[in-house]
Amino acid sequence: MLSKTEVKYIQSLGHKKRREEEKLFLAEGNKLVAELIREIPGQLFRLYATEEFFQTHPDAEKIPVKHIITEEELQRISQQQTPNQALAIINYFPVKEISKLENEWYLALDGIRDPGNMGTIIRLAEWFGISNIICSPDCADIYNPKVVQATMGSIIRVNVVEKDLYTFLADQQIPVVGAVLGGKELSSFKFPAAGVLVIGNEANGISTEVMRLLTHQLMIPRFGEAESLNAAIATSIFLWEMKRS
Amino acid sequence: MLSKTEVKYIQSLGHKKRREEEKLFLAEGNKLVAELIREIPGQLFRLYATEEFFQTHPDAEKIPVKHIITEEELQRISQQQTPNQALAIINYFPVKEISKLENEWYLALDGIRDPGNMGTIIRLAEWFGISNIICSPDCADIYNPKVVQATMGSIIRVNVVEKDLYTFLADQQIPVVGAVLGGKELSSFKFPAAGVLVIGNEANGISTEVMRLLTHQLMIPRFGEAESLNAAIATSIFLWEMKRS
Repeated sequence: MLSKTEVKYIQSLGHKKRREEEKLFLAEGNKLVAELIREIPGQLFRLYATEEFFQTHPDAEKIPVKHIITEEELQRISQQQTPNQALAIINYFPVKEISKLENEWYLALDGIRDPGNMGTIIRLAEWFGISNIICSPDCADIYNPKVVQATMGSIIRVNVVEKDLYTFLADQQIPVVGAVLGGKELSSFKFPAAGVLVIGNEANGISTEVMRLLTHQLMIPRFGEAESLNAAIATSIFLWEMKRS
Repeated sequence: MLSKTEVKYIQSLGHKKRREEEKLFLAEGNKLVAELIREIPGQLFRLYATEEFFQTHPDAEKIPVKHIITEEELQRISQQQTPNQALAIINYFPVKEISKLENEWYLALDGIRDPGNMGTIIRLAEWFGISNIICSPDCADIYNPKVVQATMGSIIRVNVVEKDLYTFLADQQIPVVGAVLGGKELSSFKFPAAGVLVIGNEANGISTEVMRLLTHQLMIPRFGEAESLNAAIATSIFLWEMKRS
């Protein structure tokens, strides 16, 4: 039986300020929590799950602090519309600092605000073998519950660091590629072996400062009348084009 | 001042059953509603908008039945978390029936359930110049408010018909392409000039029956560890690959 204080504490981790004070975040759902137990059991601070979850996931036994809760209790502590068996409180990931960009591809996110886009882009990065993402400070918090859910577990394996993009990128000796209206057609571009792909804000695109650092301005041509492509969709097309060749 | 009955009536159009009885659906937001007024004013059954909206959109004057409402009233009738100036009730679009597939590309959606994916795929279709989408009956309702919002207006211009996919596609003499685990690598495939691209359900992929009709089984190769790609993302990569060459 969860106490009121405990319920309130868990709910409070829905807020960024509280997460940063505690260095803890929430992850939910049968599949994601099972993956966390398998991959990073040492980072699980608390596990709340239904009897069914514990019966079907015997390795949950090894988590030191765990609680069997009812569906109703799960509903109370969940940030999801349809909670599914389990909720975990997780320690923040250790960030691998990045100072000099090496001989591989990086993603730089310049003000991605929508948590669904943010999470989908982290998942895409992993699919396409990008290990590091550099975020501007105005991006959605990667520990926002909606971001965590949308990554579908990729958040465990992709390293995300926060930087002032302009200052950071200005120091690098590496191609910087971005989507710009009127840029060169994407399919005609030969991606070099390494570089930074910059993805701009959903409404305003790449910021004026960062735009000045682009060494290659590219564009996804439009074949119909639609006004724009979603930021995660544009990312997927760029990453596919980078890797297909 | 909106009456309780009117508020209830508008809210009821959030439900599929009610929409189908009335052949009406909801569209919201400054940008989308402005586009509807510009493109299909004759289909606007009712317009509810704030004074600010009417001041900045003089062509709203031509809509026969319109109401100036307050922000509070908009909040009460809206399906959105953050309503934005306007809500319109729209007549269903006339469906252009499709019997024989012609010399162009079509999308066939086999059980796309998530309204966000459904709307994003309609928007993608328009971007890549696909004019017709064939949906299985278990797809998300295209008039679901979340689908309408996610299309960002493309729902006006893309023709969507509902069909039993297996029966319909079995009769066609046209390539049928789909994403299948273990399929041929996508970038090695030369897309013919016309065909049907089948996108499967988010959890289960293409249904067993429809799978038998595929003339080409393709796969997006994975470069990292991520388990899967979202259905809308996979669609974008297929459509890009189809059009890039």
